[in-house]
Formats: sequence, structure tokens, C-alpha cells
Amino acid sequence: MFNMTALLKRLVIGRAMRSEELHETLLPKRLALPIFASDPLSSVAYATQEILLVLTLGGLTYLHFTPWIAAAVVALMTVVVLSYRQVVYAYPSGGGSYEVASTNLGPSAGLVVAASLLVDYVMTVAVSVASGVDNVISALPELAPHRVLMAVGFVAVLTAINLRGVRESGRAFAAPTYLFIGSVLIMVVTGLIRYAFGDAPVAESAAYGIAPQPSDAHLAGLALVMLVLRAFSSGCTALTGVEAISNGVPAFRKPKSRNAAATMAAMGTIAVVMFVGVTTLALISKVHLTDDACRLTGLEADCGSYTQRTVIAQVAAAVFGGEHSIGFFVVQAATALVLILAANTAFNGFPMLASILSRDRYLPHQLHNRGDRLAFSNGILALAVVAGVLLWGYKANVTSLIHLYILGVFTSFTLSQLGMVRHWNQELRTERDPVLRRRHHSARAINALGGCVTGLVLVIVLATKFTEGAWLAVLAATVLYVMMRGIHRHYDTTSEELAVSDPAAELTSPSRVLAIVLVARLHKPTMRALAYARAAHPDHLEALNVSVDRDEAADLREQWDAYGIDVPLKVVDSPYREVTRPVVEYVRAIRRESPRDIVAVFIPEYVVGHWWENLLHNQSALWLKSRLLFTPGVMVTSVPWQLTSSARANRPVGRAPGSVRRGEPRGPASGERRSGTKGR
Amino acid sequence: MFNMTALLKRLVIGRAMRSEELHETLLPKRLALPIFASDPLSSVAYATQEILLVLTLGGLTYLHFTPWIAAAVVALMTVVVLSYRQVVYAYPSGGGSYEVASTNLGPSAGLVVAASLLVDYVMTVAVSVASGVDNVISALPELAPHRVLMAVGFVAVLTAINLRGVRESGRAFAAPTYLFIGSVLIMVVTGLIRYAFGDAPVAESAAYGIAPQPSDAHLAGLALVMLVLRAFSSGCTALTGVEAISNGVPAFRKPKSRNAAATMAAMGTIAVVMFVGVTTLALISKVHLTDDACRLTGLEADCGSYTQRTVIAQVAAAVFGGEHSIGFFVVQAATALVLILAANTAFNGFPMLASILSRDRYLPHQLHNRGDRLAFSNGILALAVVAGVLLWGYKANVTSLIHLYILGVFTSFTLSQLGMVRHWNQELRTERDPVLRRRHHSARAINALGGCVTGLVLVIVLATKFTEGAWLAVLAATVLYVMMRGIHRHYDTTSEELAVSDPAAELTSPSRVLAIVLVARLHKPTMRALAYARAAHPDHLEALNVSVDRDEAADLREQWDAYGIDVPLKVVDSPYREVTRPVVEYVRAIRRESPRDIVAVFIPEYVVGHWWENLLHNQSALWLKSRLLFTPGVMVTSVPWQLTSSARANRPVGRAPGSVRRGEPRGPASGERRSGTKGR
Repeated sequence: MFNMTALLKRLVIGRAMRSEELHETLLPKRLALPIFASDPLSSVAYATQEILLVLTLGGLTYLHFTPWIAAAVVALMTVVVLSYRQVVYAYPSGGGSYEVASTNLGPSAGLVVAASLLVDYVMTVAVSVASGVDNVISALPELAPHRVLMAVGFVAVLTAINLRGVRESGRAFAAPTYLFIGSVLIMVVTGLIRYAFGDAPVAESAAYGIAPQPSDAHLAGLALVMLVLRAFSSGCTALTGVEAISNGVPAFRKPKSRNAAATMAAMGTIAVVMFVGVTTLALISKVHLTDDACRLTGLEADCGSYTQRTVIAQVAAAVFGGEHSIGFFVVQAATALVLILAANTAFNGFPMLASILSRDRYLPHQLHNRGDRLAFSNGILALAVVAGVLLWGYKANVTSLIHLYILGVFTSFTLSQLGMVRHWNQELRTERDPVLRRRHHSARAINALGGCVTGLVLVIVLATKFTEGAWLAVLAATVLYVMMRGIHRHYDTTSEELAVSDPAAELTSPSRVLAIVLVARLHKPTMRALAYARAAHPDHLEALNVSVDRDEAADLREQWDAYGIDVPLKVVDSPYREVTRPVVEYVRAIRRESPRDIVAVFIPEYVVGHWWENLLHNQSALWLKSRLLFTPGVMVTSVPWQLTSSARANRPVGRAPGSVRRGEPRGPASGERRSGTKGR
Repeated sequence: MFNMTALLKRLVIGRAMRSEELHETLLPKRLALPIFASDPLSSVAYATQEILLVLTLGGLTYLHFTPWIAAAVVALMTVVVLSYRQVVYAYPSGGGSYEVASTNLGPSAGLVVAASLLVDYVMTVAVSVASGVDNVISALPELAPHRVLMAVGFVAVLTAINLRGVRESGRAFAAPTYLFIGSVLIMVVTGLIRYAFGDAPVAESAAYGIAPQPSDAHLAGLALVMLVLRAFSSGCTALTGVEAISNGVPAFRKPKSRNAAATMAAMGTIAVVMFVGVTTLALISKVHLTDDACRLTGLEADCGSYTQRTVIAQVAAAVFGGEHSIGFFVVQAATALVLILAANTAFNGFPMLASILSRDRYLPHQLHNRGDRLAFSNGILALAVVAGVLLWGYKANVTSLIHLYILGVFTSFTLSQLGMVRHWNQELRTERDPVLRRRHHSARAINALGGCVTGLVLVIVLATKFTEGAWLAVLAATVLYVMMRGIHRHYDTTSEELAVSDPAAELTSPSRVLAIVLVARLHKPTMRALAYARAAHPDHLEALNVSVDRDEAADLREQWDAYGIDVPLKVVDSPYREVTRPVVEYVRAIRRESPRDIVAVFIPEYVVGHWWENLLHNQSALWLKSRLLFTPGVMVTSVPWQLTSSARANRPVGRAPGSVRRGEPRGPASGERRSGTKGR
């Protein structure tokens, strides 16, 4: 049973690694790019489409806003990437937005950022996997009934891969990401060349018109502005995950900051080129897409049976010559794959952030432990479970999930940029070198611009998406925020209470030790407990029997005398057939009489080897011990007797669930997270 | 949290009762009859119908066999009741068939009976509840979609009622059972009077013919015999539960045996009268019933939409003047109610048998404990869970469930009657009083007849029902049998191993005690553990730190010296970030060096008050303790430090899940079932 579990764990996760092996898992740039950039790059696959879907609510009339909206997204992306390059240099420890905000704006702002980011990491997994599954299904429609199963399955696979450790994941994801970048760039270049030579590609939906929704037809003034802003909000999905690199700086090879900044610049450039390229080709080839196929005009077939392809699919088909061309298939496969893998960004970012929050005592210590393979296993598992539940709850439907998205990203963008402005102010107060001062001044300008712009976008996103589902993300982040404050308070109180105040006094032995051996019947474990208790030389020793049956108690006393045991036997009646309560009450009574003494309770136990054997014996010792721990002035001693069947179960020591590991070989000393200090 | 659970438990179950209150729950005859007889009496509602359903497979041709089959069932019932009256007198302890078989035929035969009966109790609950729900639905067809929910709900209600204790259940069930008996008897008398006066009641289905199933038309020879035997097997459902009284003798008021025998006679008489009456009226009023409504001929309506009423419903409607008469409604309501309550027989029998088996070490000790209200709570809950799962799995379908039924009953009938024959043989060997000898002779004759007849029926049932589902019951009983033997073996081995062999030697103290205090960091719990360990005067005392981080270990040592702690501190490195394994290995190393010494491991723990606070701290102490229990020559001492938040959780002592209760104030002394002797 045990060994099966262990074997399975080894198969999935691989051999355990020593703490010293940690540095080996650091990433070169060519592996860091696909790991951290798969999320922002993959959004190319749906960002354009989201813009079009909003604009076509009003028919084809407003499609001419597309280039302007795309330009705004590109400008925003440029500002954000430039801003975050400053963060990477200023804070190479990987705290990212959380560290920036809490250092410069105070812990509350930092917590707001952290809560928003945690929610958004979960959403990244959910949306990316759901969208990836959508694309797989577009290619293989017979898989449609298994949508949720596939999504959860992908999450499970990602979890296993990440539990194996950081470096392996880089290798697993490099090829598909580079394939995606390459195939989309080739598509864009090919399409533009054809356009230049007058052979512009034509999308399959170019001939269809779109009937506007009655409420969105002939908009003017504020209503039109709102529609354009909604389209812009949707396009901003392209920016999700940009900050992942700033949270992941410690995973880079040295010089960490420079490598991370270079990777970020490369990512930003590639993302902008791909996004602009796909959007341009979508306009050139006249992709006409709507949220409801029945609003398409000029469609001969029944609109119920007609499936609209995604923008990237229509463009690929138009450029490479139809949906049976090799180019179309390569682009589609790479898109589907990279979308699934985009979720991996969150599998890197979430556990790292959770570990930092745990180090700062905002989350349970368990999230700070590194697993067998030096990955933050508990964080990975937590993320997988929540994302899996979301996918299951929303039936892996992208449209429902996407409204909960990007809110957290822009919250953290805004707060961290404002924090950076403060950071540069502080630096400028002490810095005298004119070259550095000039550099700081320009960095501050960049971050100020970034803060204002992203703040504005945050307001736009909140205004246009709150009622469509974003409220749930706001609620989740608020709950997380409150919970993290509570956890922090608990850890603070605990460590204050536990701090040594007067070493000499606390080391003073109690005046007397009164030992009680619990006796249920006379067998070897009881005899051993009596012998051991006597070896501890207590000031007073007695045996205690809780009697639920007078005959049995009489038998026990008779045997006691027959064996000539020279320890007084005390029998306590239990009319309600309980054992725990009379023992606890007896101990309390002794403590009331002599409060300065301590009571040592000896519990004889026998240990069986198989889990099912435990079902055949009362587990009352366990319960009794946990109740006694609540009683002041008591120490509880288990005297085990190993039955022969326990020898088999004895072989694997530790290395099983519950055995404690710690990460961060050089991490800051922190509270009571160590073993042996916690019970019940 | 805790108090909410406790409050809910009190509301459902009532206040806890002292062991001395046990005698107050004994039953007078007028309450014992409805409790133990609701099962055999309620089968009147479907026994006739089951006979007809088999016979009409061959059309109306074979209906003339009905009186003969009914007569055979009545004869069988008479023999069985007479036989069991002997059992009640000879074995008043309530072991019933199990005790009779194991005493006279050996433990293996006893176990076969026990396994069969346990399966049959479960089936009684499942079939009765399912059939009761069917009858409720017949009256209120709009409840049909909630069939399974209703069935499980009824099981839950029965469970709650039985957890409240035996006597209350008697009161709850007396009225409906007497109402059922009364209304059916009035129906029978009214019907017969109308027949005598030439105004014979006519069933609604009297006009319909029945087309035979092709395979069952024009049967002759062996095939016809088999059909009749199948009908007889189905009719034997009337006998289920007859033995319940013999298992429940201890619940009767004194003189227990005589009261139980009188109740059994009354039950037999009433059952026979009702069964004969209903069958006679069914023949008089020409109830034509088939398993498939589409085989009815002369039916104008579409056979798919036509619902055949049950036999008792058709008879009631015919006698009292249609399905809108008050009489019809009373009979239907009483039938539905008594069927649900029939399941209660099993709720009395199953836990009692399980408790006896547990006393004999064939089932886990937990089944021998009496709950707060002195009922065998664990047995009641086990029965409820298994029956609930069956109802859910078979979608509360009577037809599917009924094939699994009555096999166990006849196994136990046969074996216990054969056991009784042996019993009387034994008695006759020593008995000299001629009056008693004559009585024993006639009793032996009755039991011999009973054994032969029920053995014959067992063969018939097996032959006609095995392939239709009875194999599952056989399989379940076999699994139970094997499991019970295994449990018995385990208890025997354990208690042999634990028996004291040399009291003086076992009481000898170990040569030296080496104490180790586990230190994770220096806080108050650690200081207290050091102080307490010193108070135990060990021969050698040291502190052990498992280091996963060299810096932290250095800090600890510095603090150690600063506080001037005069206990040597030993640091063990743990490259794989574990804590359990290095500690266990360290302890084992010490034991290898000095095998005659014992190692006392002191673990400082701090105790928090809320369950969620435990989530914030590693539970490594618990795991470490459980691993150390497997290490020979170790005693493990928890030194708790109560945080202020634990004071709140401290109030309710015991009285919570896991606190141990025991039943049977005068029960035979049995093994290691007591508290304090069992751990992890």
C-alpha cells in the first residue's frame, strides 16, 4: 500500500533532490522566454478576436476602429514592458509587483497586489486551458463531449510536469512556443507579401455581412465611446502575464536582472509584432466574426449548424490556401498547444508568489516548503485544485471565464508603477551622481506614465466588465486579502506568545512529577508502560483504570494482586461508557490540588502493521492524547508495543506524506514553521 | 463548530443515558409484536402478488395452482414458527439462529448463518423500503421522480429513530402496524361476507385476459413443476423476519422466553390469517396481474399508459367499492406505512447480531459499543449505510432487489433447525425425567421436520433464483464469512501476543533512560520541554536539532549559548529537507549501540484552539510521533504548551466523536477492546 504510493510518486515526480541541487535548476534565456512568455504570446490567438467580437455588435460599421484600438493596445504594451524593465533592475529578488508595492506603498498595498495576482494566476490557468481545449475541439470536433474532462486532464498533466521541477518544464515548453512564434510570423510575412503583390488573402467569412444588434446599431456619443472602450478592454487580454518575468527573476541565470530585462524586451517585441501582424491580416482578409452566427447575413446554410472559425484559423486558412493546407494545420496545432502551455506561466508564478507571501507570514508555512524536486509543490497543487474546480464549475467555457480575467493584472500594474515612482523619489533624495540621477529621472518618468496609463485602463476594465462577471474576481481577491491579513495576525500573536522572556525561570524544573499509567487490562504493553514509568523516577506513581463494567474492574484488580504489582491501582467509574472525559477530569482534579506539580500520563499502546488492522481497534488513545494536550501542566507519554505485524510497515522511514521539507537554503529565518513544534 | 455538532446530535438522538438505565428499555409484548412482526406481516402485501406474477407467465391457465401454493406457504410458516418457539425457550440469550448453529454445529456453521443473516437484514431494509415507496407512489404518482430520494430519506428517518433507543421505536411503530392488521382483517371479513351473500367483489382487472409468454405457454412435466416451484419460492417471502423474535429475546420483559414465544405464536397466527384472506379474496375477485401490462388482453387503453395496481390495492378497491372509497385509502396508507416500518425489524436485529458477533471477536469491537441512548449505534449506522447504497445502486427497484432476498433466511432456518435437533439429542442423553424426555422428543421431531422442510425450500430457492440475482447475495455472504474468519484470527493472534507471560521480568525497569528533546527553535514550548525532561531524571539528556538550513542552525546554537542552557545541543543535517527520517535514524543508531537502554523522545508542541489554526502550522509532530511508535525501545512524550486561543476549545471535555463507550454491563470479558491500549 505504502510502497505503491511511494512508487507512483517517484514515477510521476522523479527522484528526490538535495537542497544543494537548487542552483542547477536555474534557467538560461532561451528556456526562460518560452516559460514566462507563453502566456502573453498566446493571447495573440484571441486578443484580436475579442476586439472584433465587441465591435461587430454594431454590425460592420465600427470595424474601422480596429486599427486604432490595436494601436492603443500596442502603445500600452510598450509602456508596460518599459515600466517592468525598471522593476526587474530595481528588485531582482522576484517579488515583482508585490514586493514593489509593499516596499514603497506599505504592506496593505502589497497585499492588494498579491491578492489580485493570485486570483489572476488562477484565471490564467483556467482561461488558457479552456481556450486551448476550444482550439483542439475546433480541429477535432468529435472530442466536444469531453471538454471538461480534457481541460481537467491538461491541468493534471501541467501539475505533474511542474512538480518535477523548474528546468524540465522549460524544456517541455520551449519547442511548442518557438513553433508557435515561427509559424505565426511566417504566416504574417506570407500574407503581407501576397498583399504586396496584389494577391490579398480573402477570409472565408469576407463575403458575409453582419446585422447589428438592435441595441448597438447607430451608436453615437457616449454609447459609441463605451463600445470602443469595451473592445479596448477585451484587447487588453494581450497584456496578461507580462509581469510574470518580474516575479521570476530568481529563476534566471546570472546576471539575473540583465537577462530578465533582455528576455522581457524580446517578449514584448515578439508579442507586438505578432499581434499587429494578425490584426492587420484579419483586416486585409476581411474576417467577419460575431458572437452569434445567426447575425451573419448572406449565409446560405442554417446558422445553427454553421461554426465560425477563430480569427487566427480564418487568417491561416486564407493565407495558406484553405483549411486543408499544411500551413493551416501547423498554425492551428501550435496555437492549441501554446494556449495549453500558457497556463504554465501561472504554474511558475503562483507558487513563487505564494512562497514569498508565506515567507512574509501572509499564507500558511506549508506553501514555503520545496518538494522532493525542489519545486514549491504545495503552491502548485493549490493552484491546480482551484483552477480545476473553476474549469469544472464553468464547464471550461472561455466566454464565461474571460470576464473574470485581467482585472488583477491591471490592479498590480497600477500599484507597482506607483510604487516605482516612490522608489525613484527615494533614490533621488540620496543619489548625487549626475549620470545616475539622470537615469533615475527618466525611469521615474517611464513608471509615472505607466502608472497613469494602467490606472486608466483599470478604471475602463472595471466599468465595462464588472457586471459581466468581474465582480466575482473582485470578491475573490477581497476574501483572499482579508484571509491573508488574518493569517498574518495569527502568526504574529503566536510568535509573540511563544517568545522566551525569562530563560532561567522557564528552565526551572517543576516541583514534583506525578505519574499516572492508564490501564485498560493487563497485557504486555501495560507492563512495559509501568516499567518505563517507574524508570522515570516520578515523585508519585499510580495506575488508573476507567471502568465501564464493574465485573471487569474486579477481575483487573484480582489479576493486579496476583501479579504482585507494587503500584497502587485506582478505578474510576464511567456510567456514560466514556473514557476520555473521566481521565481528563481526574488529571484536572490533581492539578487543582497541587498546581505547581506536573502530571505525567503514560499511555500503553500497541502498534499494528496494516492500515486495516487499525479499523479493528479503538482509536481512543489518539483522541485521549489530543484532549490531554489541551490540559495545562500535563505531559503525555506513549509507550508503544510493536506487534510482529508492525515490523513490515516499519521499513520505509519518513519519505512519506507529512514528512516535512523546507526550501530556500538561504531564506530569511522565520517563525514556528519547523517540525516538532506543533501538535494535536 | 464543535458545539453545533453536539447540539445537532442531542436534537436527533436525545440526552445521553447511563448504563444503569438499560433495563428501562425492555419491551412489553404489545410493543414487541409490532417491532418484530412488522416484517413478516407486511410481506402479506406482496407475497400473494409474487405468486401470481410467476403463475401468469403462462397466462391464466395455471392460476388454479394458487391455493395449493398458498397452502404450502402456510404449512411452511406453521412449521417454522413452531420450530422457532423451541429455539426461544432453549436459547433465551438472543443469539437466535447464530447461537443455535454455532453451539451445536460448530463455529463454522454459526458463521455461515451469521453471514447469511447479516446479508438478509440488509435486504429486508432495502426491499421493504423500496416496496413501501412503491406503494406511496401508487397513491401519489406525482412523487415518482423522487423514488430514490424518498427511499434513502426513509432509511435516514429509521436510523434516527433507532439511534434514540429501543423503546421509543416500539411506540413509533405500534400504531401503524396495528392499523395495518386491523384494516386488512376488516377487508377480509367484509369481502368474505359479501361473497357469502352472493355479492362477490370484482377486481378491476377481472375482465382482462393474459396472453402467456411464448416460452411459458402449454408447459408440462418438469417445466411446469419448475414454474410452480418458482411461484412457491416467491411466495416464501412471506417468511422473512420470522426468526427476528428469536434474535431479540433479551429485549423482552421477563419472563423473556415465554413472552417471546407467545408473541411469536400471535405473529404466526395473524400472518397466516392475513395471507390466506388476501389470497382467497384475490382469487374470488379475479385479480389478473402480469409482469408486463402489454400481455393483458381486452385492454382498450394503450398498455404503456396503463398502470396495474398491486394485488392488495385491487382487492381493497373491489371490496370497499372503488378507488375513491375511504376503506381503500385506509388499507393503502396502512400498507405503505407498514412496509416502510418493516425495515425496522432489521434495525433491531442487525445491530444486535453484529454486537454478538463482535463480542465473539468476529466483527470489530466498535460494533459492540452502546451509544448515548444505549442502542448499538455503530451497527445501526453500518446497516443504514449499506442499505442506502443498495437502494441507490438499484434505484429502489423492488423487482431487482427481491431476487437477492430470502436466501439467507432459509440458510439460517435450515442450519439452526439442524442445530436444534443436535441440541435435543444432547439433552436426551442426560435427561431422566420422563415428562421432560417426552417434551424433548416432540421438540426434536418438530425441529427435525422444520430442518428438512426449510432445507428443501433452500434448495428450491437456490435452484430457481440463483441466476436471477441471488448469486450476489451468495457472494456477499461468502465475503462476509471470509472477512469474519480473518478478523477472528487477527484478534486471536493479537491477544496471544499481548498476554503477560512473566510478570516480574516484564515489570523490570530498563537499565538506563536516554532522553532526547527535539528542538526546532528556542521558544517557550522548547524551554518547558527541556525543564520537564530534566524533571524526569534521565541517565543522559541531550537536545536534538534537525537542520535544513545551516544559517538557522548557527543562529540556534548562538541563542542556546546566550541563554546559558546547560543541555548539550546536537545538530543533524537533513539535505532532503525532511525531519522525520533523521530523527528516527538517530534514535535507531542509539538503540543499536545500547540495546538494553530506552530512548525517551520529548517533543515540545503548542496547542491552538481552532481547527483552522492547525492548517497554519505543520502537522509534522503528529507524523513524527506515529513513526516513532514503530521504533522499538522508544517512549514518546508530548510536552504541550497551550496558546491562549486553546482555552476556548478546552471547555467541552470528551463527549465527542472518538470518545469510547462500552455496552453490555454484564457482558463476558473480552479482548483488547478497551481504551488506552491502542495507538495509531
